[in-house]
Amino acid sequence: MSKFLVNKYQCLEVYTPGEQPQDMDYVKLNTNESPFPPSEGVFKAVCKDEVKKLALYPDPDCKALREKIAGLYGVEKDNVFVSNGSDDILNFSFMAFCSDEKECVFPNITYGFYKVFGDLHGVKYTEIPLDSDFRINVSDYMNTGKTVVIANPNAPTGLALTKSEVESIVSSNSENVVVIDEAYVDFGAESCVELTKKYENLLVVQTYSKSRSMAGARLGFAIGSKTLIGDLNRIKYSTNPYNVNRLTLLAGAAAVDDDDYYKNCCKKIIEVREYTKEKLEEMGFTFPDSKANFIFAKSNTLSGSEYYKKLKENGVLVRHFSNPDISDYVRITVGTKEQMDTLLSVTEKILRQEV
Amino acid sequence: MSKFLVNKYQCLEVYTPGEQPQDMDYVKLNTNESPFPPSEGVFKAVCKDEVKKLALYPDPDCKALREKIAGLYGVEKDNVFVSNGSDDILNFSFMAFCSDEKECVFPNITYGFYKVFGDLHGVKYTEIPLDSDFRINVSDYMNTGKTVVIANPNAPTGLALTKSEVESIVSSNSENVVVIDEAYVDFGAESCVELTKKYENLLVVQTYSKSRSMAGARLGFAIGSKTLIGDLNRIKYSTNPYNVNRLTLLAGAAAVDDDDYYKNCCKKIIEVREYTKEKLEEMGFTFPDSKANFIFAKSNTLSGSEYYKKLKENGVLVRHFSNPDISDYVRITVGTKEQMDTLLSVTEKILRQEV
Repeated sequence: MSKFLVNKYQCLEVYTPGEQPQDMDYVKLNTNESPFPPSEGVFKAVCKDEVKKLALYPDPDCKALREKIAGLYGVEKDNVFVSNGSDDILNFSFMAFCSDEKECVFPNITYGFYKVFGDLHGVKYTEIPLDSDFRINVSDYMNTGKTVVIANPNAPTGLALTKSEVESIVSSNSENVVVIDEAYVDFGAESCVELTKKYENLLVVQTYSKSRSMAGARLGFAIGSKTLIGDLNRIKYSTNPYNVNRLTLLAGAAAVDDDDYYKNCCKKIIEVREYTKEKLEEMGFTFPDSKANFIFAKSNTLSGSEYYKKLKENGVLVRHFSNPDISDYVRITVGTKEQMDTLLSVTEKILRQEV
Repeated sequence: MSKFLVNKYQCLEVYTPGEQPQDMDYVKLNTNESPFPPSEGVFKAVCKDEVKKLALYPDPDCKALREKIAGLYGVEKDNVFVSNGSDDILNFSFMAFCSDEKECVFPNITYGFYKVFGDLHGVKYTEIPLDSDFRINVSDYMNTGKTVVIANPNAPTGLALTKSEVESIVSSNSENVVVIDEAYVDFGAESCVELTKKYENLLVVQTYSKSRSMAGARLGFAIGSKTLIGDLNRIKYSTNPYNVNRLTLLAGAAAVDDDDYYKNCCKKIIEVREYTKEKLEEMGFTFPDSKANFIFAKSNTLSGSEYYKKLKENGVLVRHFSNPDISDYVRITVGTKEQMDTLLSVTEKILRQEV
């Protein structure tokens, strides 16, 4: 930290992203990426002619992509916001809808970035405890009088609320924005996009980083009422209007056309998730019933940090969180069946103390 | 605007980017892009194998690219920050080094975004008038006791301070950060990167959007002392750590290897700029002596808005600013000789009232 940094950021605790080793071929099951490549249309979109056009700025309005996404979800272009990954949108949402006066609530165990955004922007926030089974207690979020942020499915538990549970939260907080972060929704939970047509206070945030195999392209979108989307645009046009890469805009639109391919990838991931759960259970692991592309697993013999370390030593990377409430667990991204078989066989060896 | 937007942003005046028409082939001389495509290395870097890897997150540390840039400028990796375009870095700089208590100064005629960043983050700022020839008066920036932000060359005038003028500003403000925005430096001004080795309070910001033909890729970088770079990383890791696309990281590194190509493009642009100045002068235009890839020109017969409109009607897009201090002028990006000959011939017809 320099002596020049303004006071308010001097105590900031930044977000720690998952490890992104660039130097070794791990079986990488630590940041919930898709094990499948982008679809054929994406390969076609990123062509030589388009690389040539990188000399030109992207369309800051992202019109073509917003129209595509709107078509897919049955809303209008002006109900869609696109930005540089869903983190970008969540950051903008904390700016637009939370402050030291406009309080905010989110679960105490959830995506770790919410707390960072809150601290960064001087937001007054309350972390609401999950129940003892890691479940979000819906009644805790009724009539809060505050902005509500919920990941659904939640991370790192993978547990999902139903659409009607979300609706009850949204309808009871009509004077406040409810942000539903659906980063993992395509792996078996119910999306609440449809509810945005009914509730002007609902913002649904999704990402291309998980079910759409494009974490490296940096693309997220939000769907909500036109005025909420207008608020996000106000923040975007005050920070970095050209924040989505030209090639990413094209790739994102092509991915919409290839929606069946991605649906099929999700189907495979769900099958492999259920298979992996079964095998882990046989080895004495317990976990919440994840509807996401990861399993939040606890061994009956190993601590979370031991299991994480042993896996890493044996070439398998998963995520461990130091938060004592969840330090018994590791979060394992669901990859291909082959990757999970490697995880399972290494796990077996670890449990038998062979490695 | 929704009823949910927090108070502090309700009166925000957002930045208005230049027009980015997606539907007609204008001679596009309005947003200071390069008329030349990226270098061969960039085409090779954005290959099918790398598109496949878009499923994985980029390296948030941007290590390989930072090492490349450090090598080019003779600094160390930890003196280099990279982010999603230089706007992103300027935004972070306003966050990190300016506030309601830590005041900031910049010229009253300059890149319009500084004011927007200031307003967004509740920064107390003063706009210091240019002199009557649009020059920055160096003595106005000595011993300010405030954070200083200067575009060098300045926009939209194109006028540059010398390195020794910048040094006198930096050395006289040793207790405050001086941000030198060198977006246009490669077109004939003196870079101050070298001075970052001597002054811990100097941050030099550059971009791939102008001289490096990659406005569409979204990449900017800053060079400064390790602690200043650490401050910017603190903001980045609290907003969007993965903010640079995988392919952009590769393209950016490839461009460093192809530095000669870009130097040659700049040389051509400088030649065409001087040629265009000469021709415009013959037609009664006046302009500051631009060291950037644009000319800030005023006709002796047409108003700025008339000239802009007439050009647009005839397929040539330039930038006009409504600010009354500069509304007599238009800012013309320097393109290829062919593009400038089109501009000149259309201008001739406009002046003769043939179109």
